Amino acid sequence: MARRLVVLQSSANAPESGRVVGKVWLVGGGPGDPDLLTVKALRLLQSADVVVHDRLTPQPVLDLAGPQARMIDVGKRKSRHTLPQDDINALLVALALEGLKVVRLKGGDPFVFGRGGEEMQACREAGVPVEVVPGVSAALAAAAGAGAPLTHRGMAQAVTFVTGHAASGQAPDLDWNALASANHTVVVYMGLSSAPIITARLIEAGRAASTPVLAVENASRPDERRVLSTLGQLPSALSGIDGPAILIIGEVAALAEDATLLDQVLERVQA
Amino acid sequence: MARRLVVLQSSANAPESGRVVGKVWLVGGGPGDPDLLTVKALRLLQSADVVVHDRLTPQPVLDLAGPQARMIDVGKRKSRHTLPQDDINALLVALALEGLKVVRLKGGDPFVFGRGGEEMQACREAGVPVEVVPGVSAALAAAAGAGAPLTHRGMAQAVTFVTGHAASGQAPDLDWNALASANHTVVVYMGLSSAPIITARLIEAGRAASTPVLAVENASRPDERRVLSTLGQLPSALSGIDGPAILIIGEVAALAEDATLLDQVLERVQA
Repeated sequence: MARRLVVLQSSANAPESGRVVGKVWLVGGGPGDPDLLTVKALRLLQSADVVVHDRLTPQPVLDLAGPQARMIDVGKRKSRHTLPQDDINALLVALALEGLKVVRLKGGDPFVFGRGGEEMQACREAGVPVEVVPGVSAALAAAAGAGAPLTHRGMAQAVTFVTGHAASGQAPDLDWNALASANHTVVVYMGLSSAPIITARLIEAGRAASTPVLAVENASRPDERRVLSTLGQLPSALSGIDGPAILIIGEVAALAEDATLLDQVLERVQA
Repeated sequence: MARRLVVLQSSANAPESGRVVGKVWLVGGGPGDPDLLTVKALRLLQSADVVVHDRLTPQPVLDLAGPQARMIDVGKRKSRHTLPQDDINALLVALALEGLKVVRLKGGDPFVFGRGGEEMQACREAGVPVEVVPGVSAALAAAAGAGAPLTHRGMAQAVTFVTGHAASGQAPDLDWNALASANHTVVVYMGLSSAPIITARLIEAGRAASTPVLAVENASRPDERRVLSTLGQLPSALSGIDGPAILIIGEVAALAEDATLLDQVLERVQA
């Protein structure tokens, strides 16, 4: 009887024979604070021939690249692409085929809403060695900074990450009934523009309008701001926020430091 | 009309007046590879007066602590607690009240199944300043190492983290129907012992038995092993795994490096 155990080996892709091929590292650049880069990301930045980064990469992170590194900004802003994804993929492959050590610096973690999978596939298809270096995803930094655990005994035994920035501009096609269950934290990446529809769907599906929501803008950066609110109040509560934001939806949000401020303000509103 | 915007300030807790109080840092120690510590975690380890760690913390990570640091192992293994959680909380508070800089080193990220929230609350209640430093959670390292993105265009637009190690020893009380929907990656932390029940629930709820599952044992460590299988094959496919393991359940798992091995083996099994 054949065994069903398949043990995968962690082997680097072999470059095509007879050619000097470089390599692409898809590197999680963390949430923004350079101190939250991994030691490995820092070392790769320092030794890269080329660093390919997005427009939102903070300057203090870019400043960590070695003096030899060529810096290429392929920055994307919502509805304002500098380079389409296919062109970024092609660029990474072309640079590696020149024999260069290419660091593709991604915000947060490359495999959590980072489109790192597409860049990895492009490299694989071209026979370019590619390695993925995980990073601190923005939600983890937002939660840590605020003191709002994503999972917590008796309060949240699971956490779901969704993105508010669907390709179509619509709310993501998710099972809202499931996300509406208590005992479950929902984190929305890039949730500002879709906050009205996401909160409406969650309330329709039965999640209480009083469910706490913590919005964190620019998590871990000097200009970080946090707004504690509720699902019911959400769209208007976010009126002062315009940067990249994480929404942490669930009872855990009320554990955020200084969360009592919310009650005080609510009392004032009701008085 | 009162504004409903509540902007939280990122202020450190003030120690009680007239007392020299230390501080507790709840530090994400990452998945195991010391290179995946953050720069901040490394610096804190090097300057701590005391490092409080678990039994499973790898020696190469512990070796990064400064020579002055007192190392305290409060290691927990399933069904073999060295110190109950309440005692760990009390220890952290007591050390800080001695005026010490206390690093509480957690595996992965403190707020993703790390029980960091409980330790944070204990510090807050005692008036001990506490700061949470996020880390690379094990699932992110498992995905990066294998080349299996947790989210991927057209394949997974959300990812849910659950733990297989419920306090009761039962499967977690989750909405399996929701987790069973395609286009959604499910990651199970510490999923070995509960793999039979979790996979059964997902299949009952309608997720295809052919759904790929990647099990990663000791992600990012020298002894990392990966097993690619399917929901239907899962319990028996894991027979060779006995360390801490992450299960990545969903179509993305098939993108893992060398994933074609699975098909080859399946062909052999069927032949």
